[in-house]
Amino acid sequence: MTAQHSGLGQVHADQAPQILDLPIGLHAAGTRRETDSMGAVDVPADRYWGAQTQRSLIHFSIGDDRMPKAVYHAYGYVKKAAAIVNGRAGRLPAWKADLIEKVAEEVISGRLDDHFPLYVWQTGSGTQSNMNTNEVIGNRAIQLVGGELGSKSPIHPNDHVNMGQSSNDTFPTAMHIAAVKAVHEHLLPSVRALRRAIEAKSEQWRDVVKIGRTHLEDAVPLTVGQEWSGYACQLRQALDRAATSAEGLFELAAGGTAVGTGLNAPPGFAEQVAAEIAAATGFPFTTAENKFAAQGGLDAMAGASAGLRALAVPLMKIANDIRWLASGPRCGLGELILPANEPGSSIMPGKVNPTQCEAMVMVCIQVLSEDAAVAFAGSQGNFELNAMRPVVINNFLHAATILADACTKLRQYCIEGTRLHDDQIDHYVDRSLMLVTALSPVIGYDKASAIAHKADDEGTTLREAALASGHIGAEDFDRIVDPAAMAAAAGRHG
Amino acid sequence: MTAQHSGLGQVHADQAPQILDLPIGLHAAGTRRETDSMGAVDVPADRYWGAQTQRSLIHFSIGDDRMPKAVYHAYGYVKKAAAIVNGRAGRLPAWKADLIEKVAEEVISGRLDDHFPLYVWQTGSGTQSNMNTNEVIGNRAIQLVGGELGSKSPIHPNDHVNMGQSSNDTFPTAMHIAAVKAVHEHLLPSVRALRRAIEAKSEQWRDVVKIGRTHLEDAVPLTVGQEWSGYACQLRQALDRAATSAEGLFELAAGGTAVGTGLNAPPGFAEQVAAEIAAATGFPFTTAENKFAAQGGLDAMAGASAGLRALAVPLMKIANDIRWLASGPRCGLGELILPANEPGSSIMPGKVNPTQCEAMVMVCIQVLSEDAAVAFAGSQGNFELNAMRPVVINNFLHAATILADACTKLRQYCIEGTRLHDDQIDHYVDRSLMLVTALSPVIGYDKASAIAHKADDEGTTLREAALASGHIGAEDFDRIVDPAAMAAAAGRHG
Amino acid sequence: MTAQHSGLGQVHADQAPQILDLPIGLHAAGTRRETDSMGAVDVPADRYWGAQTQRSLIHFSIGDDRMPKAVYHAYGYVKKAAAIVNGRAGRLPAWKADLIEKVAEEVISGRLDDHFPLYVWQTGSGTQSNMNTNEVIGNRAIQLVGGELGSKSPIHPNDHVNMGQSSNDTFPTAMHIAAVKAVHEHLLPSVRALRRAIEAKSEQWRDVVKIGRTHLEDAVPLTVGQEWSGYACQLRQALDRAATSAEGLFELAAGGTAVGTGLNAPPGFAEQVAAEIAAATGFPFTTAENKFAAQGGLDAMAGASAGLRALAVPLMKIANDIRWLASGPRCGLGELILPANEPGSSIMPGKVNPTQCEAMVMVCIQVLSEDAAVAFAGSQGNFELNAMRPVVINNFLHAATILADACTKLRQYCIEGTRLHDDQIDHYVDRSLMLVTALSPVIGYDKASAIAHKADDEGTTLREAALASGHIGAEDFDRIVDPAAMAAAAGRHG
Amino acid sequence: MTAQHSGLGQVHADQAPQILDLPIGLHAAGTRRETDSMGAVDVPADRYWGAQTQRSLIHFSIGDDRMPKAVYHAYGYVKKAAAIVNGRAGRLPAWKADLIEKVAEEVISGRLDDHFPLYVWQTGSGTQSNMNTNEVIGNRAIQLVGGELGSKSPIHPNDHVNMGQSSNDTFPTAMHIAAVKAVHEHLLPSVRALRRAIEAKSEQWRDVVKIGRTHLEDAVPLTVGQEWSGYACQLRQALDRAATSAEGLFELAAGGTAVGTGLNAPPGFAEQVAAEIAAATGFPFTTAENKFAAQGGLDAMAGASAGLRALAVPLMKIANDIRWLASGPRCGLGELILPANEPGSSIMPGKVNPTQCEAMVMVCIQVLSEDAAVAFAGSQGNFELNAMRPVVINNFLHAATILADACTKLRQYCIEGTRLHDDQIDHYVDRSLMLVTALSPVIGYDKASAIAHKADDEGTTLREAALASGHIGAEDFDRIVDPAAMAAAAGRHG
Repeated sequence: MTAQHSGLGQVHADQAPQILDLPIGLHAAGTRRETDSMGAVDVPADRYWGAQTQRSLIHFSIGDDRMPKAVYHAYGYVKKAAAIVNGRAGRLPAWKADLIEKVAEEVISGRLDDHFPLYVWQTGSGTQSNMNTNEVIGNRAIQLVGGELGSKSPIHPNDHVNMGQSSNDTFPTAMHIAAVKAVHEHLLPSVRALRRAIEAKSEQWRDVVKIGRTHLEDAVPLTVGQEWSGYACQLRQALDRAATSAEGLFELAAGGTAVGTGLNAPPGFAEQVAAEIAAATGFPFTTAENKFAAQGGLDAMAGASAGLRALAVPLMKIANDIRWLASGPRCGLGELILPANEPGSSIMPGKVNPTQCEAMVMVCIQVLSEDAAVAFAGSQGNFELNAMRPVVINNFLHAATILADACTKLRQYCIEGTRLHDDQIDHYVDRSLMLVTALSPVIGYDKASAIAHKADDEGTTLREAALASGHIGAEDFDRIVDPAAMAAAAGRHG
Repeated sequence: MTAQHSGLGQVHADQAPQILDLPIGLHAAGTRRETDSMGAVDVPADRYWGAQTQRSLIHFSIGDDRMPKAVYHAYGYVKKAAAIVNGRAGRLPAWKADLIEKVAEEVISGRLDDHFPLYVWQTGSGTQSNMNTNEVIGNRAIQLVGGELGSKSPIHPNDHVNMGQSSNDTFPTAMHIAAVKAVHEHLLPSVRALRRAIEAKSEQWRDVVKIGRTHLEDAVPLTVGQEWSGYACQLRQALDRAATSAEGLFELAAGGTAVGTGLNAPPGFAEQVAAEIAAATGFPFTTAENKFAAQGGLDAMAGASAGLRALAVPLMKIANDIRWLASGPRCGLGELILPANEPGSSIMPGKVNPTQCEAMVMVCIQVLSEDAAVAFAGSQGNFELNAMRPVVINNFLHAATILADACTKLRQYCIEGTRLHDDQIDHYVDRSLMLVTALSPVIGYDKASAIAHKADDEGTTLREAALASGHIGAEDFDRIVDPAAMAAAAGRHG
Repeated sequence: MTAQHSGLGQVHADQAPQILDLPIGLHAAGTRRETDSMGAVDVPADRYWGAQTQRSLIHFSIGDDRMPKAVYHAYGYVKKAAAIVNGRAGRLPAWKADLIEKVAEEVISGRLDDHFPLYVWQTGSGTQSNMNTNEVIGNRAIQLVGGELGSKSPIHPNDHVNMGQSSNDTFPTAMHIAAVKAVHEHLLPSVRALRRAIEAKSEQWRDVVKIGRTHLEDAVPLTVGQEWSGYACQLRQALDRAATSAEGLFELAAGGTAVGTGLNAPPGFAEQVAAEIAAATGFPFTTAENKFAAQGGLDAMAGASAGLRALAVPLMKIANDIRWLASGPRCGLGELILPANEPGSSIMPGKVNPTQCEAMVMVCIQVLSEDAAVAFAGSQGNFELNAMRPVVINNFLHAATILADACTKLRQYCIEGTRLHDDQIDHYVDRSLMLVTALSPVIGYDKASAIAHKADDEGTTLREAALASGHIGAEDFDRIVDPAAMAAAAGRHG
Repeated sequence: MTAQHSGLGQVHADQAPQILDLPIGLHAAGTRRETDSMGAVDVPADRYWGAQTQRSLIHFSIGDDRMPKAVYHAYGYVKKAAAIVNGRAGRLPAWKADLIEKVAEEVISGRLDDHFPLYVWQTGSGTQSNMNTNEVIGNRAIQLVGGELGSKSPIHPNDHVNMGQSSNDTFPTAMHIAAVKAVHEHLLPSVRALRRAIEAKSEQWRDVVKIGRTHLEDAVPLTVGQEWSGYACQLRQALDRAATSAEGLFELAAGGTAVGTGLNAPPGFAEQVAAEIAAATGFPFTTAENKFAAQGGLDAMAGASAGLRALAVPLMKIANDIRWLASGPRCGLGELILPANEPGSSIMPGKVNPTQCEAMVMVCIQVLSEDAAVAFAGSQGNFELNAMRPVVINNFLHAATILADACTKLRQYCIEGTRLHDDQIDHYVDRSLMLVTALSPVIGYDKASAIAHKADDEGTTLREAALASGHIGAEDFDRIVDPAAMAAAAGRHG
């Protein structure tokens, strides 16, 4: 019976060893023998990981998708919080708690990233990544007190680093932390900056009258500023949706342990761990109201993923609008002039393409499909565990990242440098027949319709056809069919 | 120049005709000649619709998907509100406004449903369904004042029924009204009733200890009540998500008219129409903050659809859990006994199957795919209009409906009659090796693991293997390895 | 022990009753008592169905999706084939086999459609629709020999109509038959007609030179005929894919009975039933090579569904191309003039929209999502049965139907009436700068590029900029930069 | 006018320089000035790429998804083939053609991989990856003749390496080559090996009778070998589907150049390039029958992707079956014993989980979603180009790779080591009530049903209930209700 378990669960305060000031790194060649409950395994001698990580590397080398490092950084917060709470309660000697906390901070910082090699496609609970974390923290802690790597003494990956925890509650917790940080620290700021850039354009072009298009067909006029105010509003609302959709991520499963009952975690553990994580990250994390739901389901992740989709849907529309409006330069719509960032063709000299928009459209397609994968996986839980967690967090973080970066690039290399092709814009307004709509309340839909058809058939201007119809006089026509006034109607709604 | 347009837009108060007390219905055989701006068309003489509806019937008979009647009922609210606002402002003579309002109420009531025959697969703006509504209201109004059907006098489908409106703002408005009603009046109540039925079971079975399962494998115990509390919590949170996700539907595009500028709608029209719709429906509808966003996008619909998905994801998990837990009767898990509603097999006598769960799983798959269609369509807008509206509203209403009904059936014919197979439940708890987990904090993970493996290899009970290991005595074992106590850990978290 | 089972399985030749010449229909009011292994149920007296159908109607009224009638027609072939084979083998008295066959043909013809009321969302095996078929055939047969409805004598729904069958093998069989007919008799002919219409246009416009567009941007010229030859080729290849993808449907599960072993079906039954179905339908159906695969999976359906998707993908592209090329009439690309089938707007007089294209795009989105539902459901089988069958066949038949009809409408009301706007097409060719590409092999990419940029910056024609550059003379320019010749390059590839 | 263009297109045979024997690599620090038609850019001095690659790196650093190296290896074949054909025709001096070919082979070998840094999210045509290839080949060739990097002389990236090509035809060509190799050299062999391992198990367990399960509920017996023969057949058919679905990839767009007309490529170029690629790769590539289809669409890729899905659908079912059948060890179905590859839980000692199956299920979900992305992107083409190519090839190659690797792992670490838990299997057969089905043809469905219900209600064996019913005697019962004989029925169908 080991020291820490003598007396059936009472922890004896071991003698606190000195903590050495050793930089991260193992300067050893060849392999080191590590063990777990199934026996011994050789691991690279310059890595902190242990037997279970090595087994996973062997059994799951599927493709080249690695568990995102952000998951391990998030796990650092979990291990740190658990150590603090365990130490405070006296379940863990203070020096062990402090040591685990210290190494957990190294994990958080990313400085141990090279020691987290596992693949996404592993056990569906993420246990192997949890054990990777436990093993790395354990061995690094052992190093810091001059112990023997692989000895699990004085820091045992399960008994100490994982104390009061299960993969089933901590992996979801780490997922939520990583997802919250991705959304709030990367994605939302990037989209907000894009929205502001669009708002600036909307303001700049507030009074430029252009032709509207519905069904791709000529419609009544509006201003360029109004059109772009629509984009800005779509993004503003999508930002709200993304933020609201991510709120479920603030609930943490930690404390539920193996099946949600909290077995082997003391009373209050869940609440205290959540509080520590909140304090360390600055986000309002709390303990999940029901651990069976939090561990058996992936609903909060699927909900947050819907928030990514809520951004992708309007972003795809906006990117498509911009590339269509910039189409040409001579045989397209040609209302916008995009920055020429690079030659567009290997064969057609001088060609410039709306490549930032294309990248954004492709990113949106990717995000929509990754969101569908998250929902699918979210539906596939059984009993006390949804064992589809790695596929979910990998898709979520990937989608959030490429969406964020694509917004930044679109803003920097497209939106901010976009200019209007004023002549073309004016030209369309002058030609459009749909200005006839303004006549409708005056002469009725049917007569207005006849005028528009006549102009179209005969290739005349609307004014010519209107006057020829006898339904309206020149003075009235010029007063009523005024594009700027027609667009100004929307001052009320913009 | 017709009376109502004389003086260039000033409306002359026509003499108000008497409104006849005629029941709905046209008792005529054969066809009637109707016209629109493209000419004349023959329509069935016993139908109120006009030329544009008839053209659509001819050109779009694709499959047998008809625009949901709920869309027309919703359109009834739009036409009623517009008539009230137009009448109040004096743009429309009071008697015409009253007449349109009266017929709009007939539309709302569903009594004119037989006059709305159009297909889902039509113009992407829903214009043909708007015109169907305008034509039916127009002709029914004409009938009520003894006029000539098809004459468009004294009520013109465009100039009066559609006054101040476009399909581009009213179809989205009708979509939102129909969707809000489907969600709030049908779906959410149905799911809430299911949640309550599950909560009642959770309470009823609060203290029944059962084995937990993770990765489908035996895990530590919990109570049946805890397990079902997880289901209830998942639904409670999903209900919140669905309600929150649908909030964007309260914003109405009405007043934006053709491209969002509100051309041909007077100042205040948007706000007043929204207020009238709110008053008539009892839901807090307001005018959309930006009409260009509301008409160019479908983001509120895609957002609300994500709320349907948020329900389908846990419902699929719950339905799967229940059918697995009820699997057997002799060669499955056999913890639950479901009501035997019908013979299960045409060949295997006496077979009973978890058919309500299967229906729910299929419904969830359908909802997930229809939600994906909504998001896809939502991404395909161009410029001032997303012309993918019919596919969106049809999928949304369909998904909401089958999800609601499936919840009702699952509750009535499965959940409420589900019983526990107590012997089987106890049997599993007695046999499980994972109770060893409770020993882990006392003797350490590694020794506990060895005990479990030994019991598994030798086919003994956990107690036998534990005592044989010498790491724990009988008294301690019996105190620590107590399933009820292990499950009770969760009192704190349930 | 009933007559037909006396002697443990030996069938006694009952006295063959006279078959009455009674039209389909039950002229009775109120209800009739029917029974199954769970007891008695009242059914409408004017319907042939029995107790199990009625139970299903009660328990599964989810939405308004009814099992497609095509499934019952297909089931008619199954019941007919089984009766023939059973009769021929002497397992069933000849007169009973003949009677079942006769009624099965009524089912095939659709004349009993009103007696198949069940919902899609039912048991995942389709058992209830199988029993609906068994019950209706049984009672109709009983009627024809003057028996008592509901007596199950002399024709028992399970023992005779379902003889040698299970829902688990016959429902997949009916699915395949219905799917094959939908694909070969409806979908493929409709797409082929569309392809031919497109080919005719391609031929008609073979020599009309137009500007090409890549990335939506001006590119080098091609002919309209070449562009449309691409559409035709896409459809031709997609037709091949759809046909090939549907080949797996020719394998029938019939004969596998409950779990694939063929229990209760005699040797040769599977092969003979498949042969009878092949003879009756004219399609090369055979018995599935492995019944466990055929019943445990839905792979052939998922494969065939991918063939629907293979059509939707290019159809969406083609429909989008056409509506973009027809955009305008004055502020869009304006190369095509589509038929004006109906007024396009309730507010904008004279507006004409590309509504057939929009309907097609929406249909394609729907097909893509329904195909995803099929694949999802296909992945959710367990052990000896994939119990997600109704959702699969409903989506498949729906997708095939709307795709077929949308192709017909697009052809009739759009493609066949589409005309070229020749002036606009010429205008673009004249203006495009990308004709510079022809200079590239002569003067090099870099100089060609500089010429194009110069023309763009200065708003000149390409010719002006080229001559001004000094890199090419007028004569060479006019010889080399010849749009017709540039497009003609493709004579070799078209 | 440069030498190579003097005489308007006639190529002068430059003096062939000596080709140096220089290993790959640039030993320079800092940056090098490179230029393109937009001006000069600094690139890392130790990299071969030029200005356009560098521009792309700056403008498209979105996430960390890099264009798969397999695309560049495939591009190596394209450049090699084009050089051969151009050289043979005398359009390119022989030494230049040889030099490009030599470097292209270095590209194919992967030895230049470090010089292809671009992101997936770039221009939708893949032009930047084409130019990356052109630039790297150009500069490496220049190095080999002792020229000045960045001088584009004597090998120009556009004029020589890209001669007769466009990104619009070569990127699709490279996609097809890379996809064919992924499918045929990696995916199919891996799945075939899995299928063979399953077949071996099927053979090994051919006569082990087990209970069947439909709807998760007890059904009639079959053998384990039959069950696994179903898996093997599903994979065999899916392999066929995958191979057939990929056949469209053999058609290459090369020769279509910018818009499909083949402008700037000489007659026969397309056919000859395809022949060279076929020769070099050993796959039956041919030139696409219609270049407008090949470049405007992505149908062959979407079709091939459906083949990946065709594998994922049954693989998910198989993986799920195996983990369910192995569930337990004491509270699940427990028919299979999977290899214990690693400890399953961080908290539950001794736990073993079906992790290979979980990884496979997650991979299948990922493949289904990536396939959906491919189809979506495939639908988004416009005019002469589908500019969604990078997202398509990235998803395709990723899906093929993880599916292949997951099959290998599942085979090695799960299937091959799976054993039967014979006692449990026998136990279920003994207990099942559904053996009653064998009585049905003898005593009729209704009596058989009553027996089964009676046994279930009273908790007796089927035999007890049957004999008590009086419908069957002991001798007949024992003869008829023989599980092995019941399963043997399928000898005919397996």
